[in-house]
Amino acid sequence: MNDDSLALYADTLRSMIDHRTRALAWKGKSSTLRAACTHVLEGGGKRIRGMLVLLSCRSVGGTVRRALDAAVAIEAMHDFTLVHDDIMDNADSRRGRPTVHKRWNANTAILAGDVLLGLAYRSLLECPRDRRGRLVDVFTMGLIDVCDGQGMDMELARRTDVSLAEYFAMIEKKTGALIATSAEMGGVIGGGTPAEVRALRKFGHYLGRAFQLQDDLLDVVANEKKLGKPIGGDIVEGKKTFLLISAAGRAQGADKELIDRVLRREVQRDVVGAVTDLFQRYGILEDAERRILHDTRTASRALDALRPSRSVAVLRWLAGALVHRAS
Amino acid sequence: MNDDSLALYADTLRSMIDHRTRALAWKGKSSTLRAACTHVLEGGGKRIRGMLVLLSCRSVGGTVRRALDAAVAIEAMHDFTLVHDDIMDNADSRRGRPTVHKRWNANTAILAGDVLLGLAYRSLLECPRDRRGRLVDVFTMGLIDVCDGQGMDMELARRTDVSLAEYFAMIEKKTGALIATSAEMGGVIGGGTPAEVRALRKFGHYLGRAFQLQDDLLDVVANEKKLGKPIGGDIVEGKKTFLLISAAGRAQGADKELIDRVLRREVQRDVVGAVTDLFQRYGILEDAERRILHDTRTASRALDALRPSRSVAVLRWLAGALVHRAS
Repeated sequence: MNDDSLALYADTLRSMIDHRTRALAWKGKSSTLRAACTHVLEGGGKRIRGMLVLLSCRSVGGTVRRALDAAVAIEAMHDFTLVHDDIMDNADSRRGRPTVHKRWNANTAILAGDVLLGLAYRSLLECPRDRRGRLVDVFTMGLIDVCDGQGMDMELARRTDVSLAEYFAMIEKKTGALIATSAEMGGVIGGGTPAEVRALRKFGHYLGRAFQLQDDLLDVVANEKKLGKPIGGDIVEGKKTFLLISAAGRAQGADKELIDRVLRREVQRDVVGAVTDLFQRYGILEDAERRILHDTRTASRALDALRPSRSVAVLRWLAGALVHRAS
Repeated sequence: MNDDSLALYADTLRSMIDHRTRALAWKGKSSTLRAACTHVLEGGGKRIRGMLVLLSCRSVGGTVRRALDAAVAIEAMHDFTLVHDDIMDNADSRRGRPTVHKRWNANTAILAGDVLLGLAYRSLLECPRDRRGRLVDVFTMGLIDVCDGQGMDMELARRTDVSLAEYFAMIEKKTGALIATSAEMGGVIGGGTPAEVRALRKFGHYLGRAFQLQDDLLDVVANEKKLGKPIGGDIVEGKKTFLLISAAGRAQGADKELIDRVLRREVQRDVVGAVTDLFQRYGILEDAERRILHDTRTASRALDALRPSRSVAVLRWLAGALVHRAS
């Protein structure tokens, strides 16, 4: 299969998830809450986590149909985290539309997130009976981990002395948990052997790390138009990215002073160019690219434990597409 | 058994739940989140929902030990709703201690609520394997309903023309859902017949209604010291209680004008006496008491479907104690 047909196949899976996720829309009595949930569920998104569930299930011999409710569940859980995170980050827009707390208010957004999580569990309970217990187990651990990761992120945000080890521990949970959970859930539904399920989880783990590193990198190297927002936003906010933490550990003299000002959030948008240049001079952009490549390769190698198939090829292609994405 | 020994037995169950709920405290990496969860889980509370799970399980022949994890799960879910509700209501204190968003901040409280829900599901997954699927199902429906009820409450708060039918539909979900869920879960774990489980759910349903009506009534008739807050708080906030909605439908002339001012939140604490007097004159307090008695009796009668036992007696006693409570 060439890249075009892989992309086409991935698109088909994405529309199946989209279609079913919209159908999750809910018959509650509170009309505001109903509208807020529909707003989120119809917002689309890349559906990466859902696709990972479907492809992982197929990669161990299961069918897409068997895994669809779990794919929708993980997407609804992801939406729940986004709605609550957007309140915490006071974000104005998401997927090109106003966030729930901007369109309505914070209270509605708290509650809409809560309902989305309930709907996520409800969708999970539609999964094949023989796998349900284990799925709810893996799913719940993912939920607890992703909250822990967001908590760690909030703590790192208040400090100026964050180490790379702390950064990796945080993104492993905040971004990695749901991606690893998605791949593991797919393996469980598909009836994979313990070794296959472990391989899929490992794949998700490294993919999640590469995905977050790429996210950090895109903030400075992306094309603004494709990114859909001004570049350097993380710098202006003093966000503890791989780039900023690496720079804090390496920069000297005037460079160090600039980075310290970024860490203390004492800068405006006009420093973005200088900081990007600094990242470049200290070899930090290159370092990030090297790590992304390394993690993607480790992820891909984990799949060697599975029997070669079209689904495994699509998983590998998806991993490559995600870490070479422009937005 | 006399009332003293029933109360003693209930106390024993409450300490078992308390003990196990504290043990839920969580080993996450985010220290703020860990502290906030511990703060909530150690806060105690009446543990009514947990006791209902245990007693309902025993009432159909199950053991307390079998139901303990489910009791802890429902208490953790209840805690999750309180932490999020307290943000929405901007409440300063809960169970005599600062609320999470006051002690820390709103973001920590959003996230602590989310983790508590994750811990609730984790506790549920410790339940006997043969009942787990159905428990997660009932639990998830309870979660969705309680969110819907809170959403309805937020909508009613913005309106001045609320009907009693809308009020009852709201409290059925906001207060009733978790209480009915608790009784149903106990019946499921205990291995009750479908008729027994239905009877327990019905018991919980009417008990929840009586409980909320009593809550509304206590706002004006309680002893301030026992209530732990000034009486008339609901009046000052123009909260859509049974009393206020009933008064809006009956009051005439100057009385009607006063009630309209309360509904529009144009009053201060100095009207509490006059409004309470108005509730009295229009027979609304009496009406509330009559309905509480009626719902409690209906709840109690639902238990006639169960074989008489000490647990059924304790359930009946608990229902009576709750609706005659002073705080």
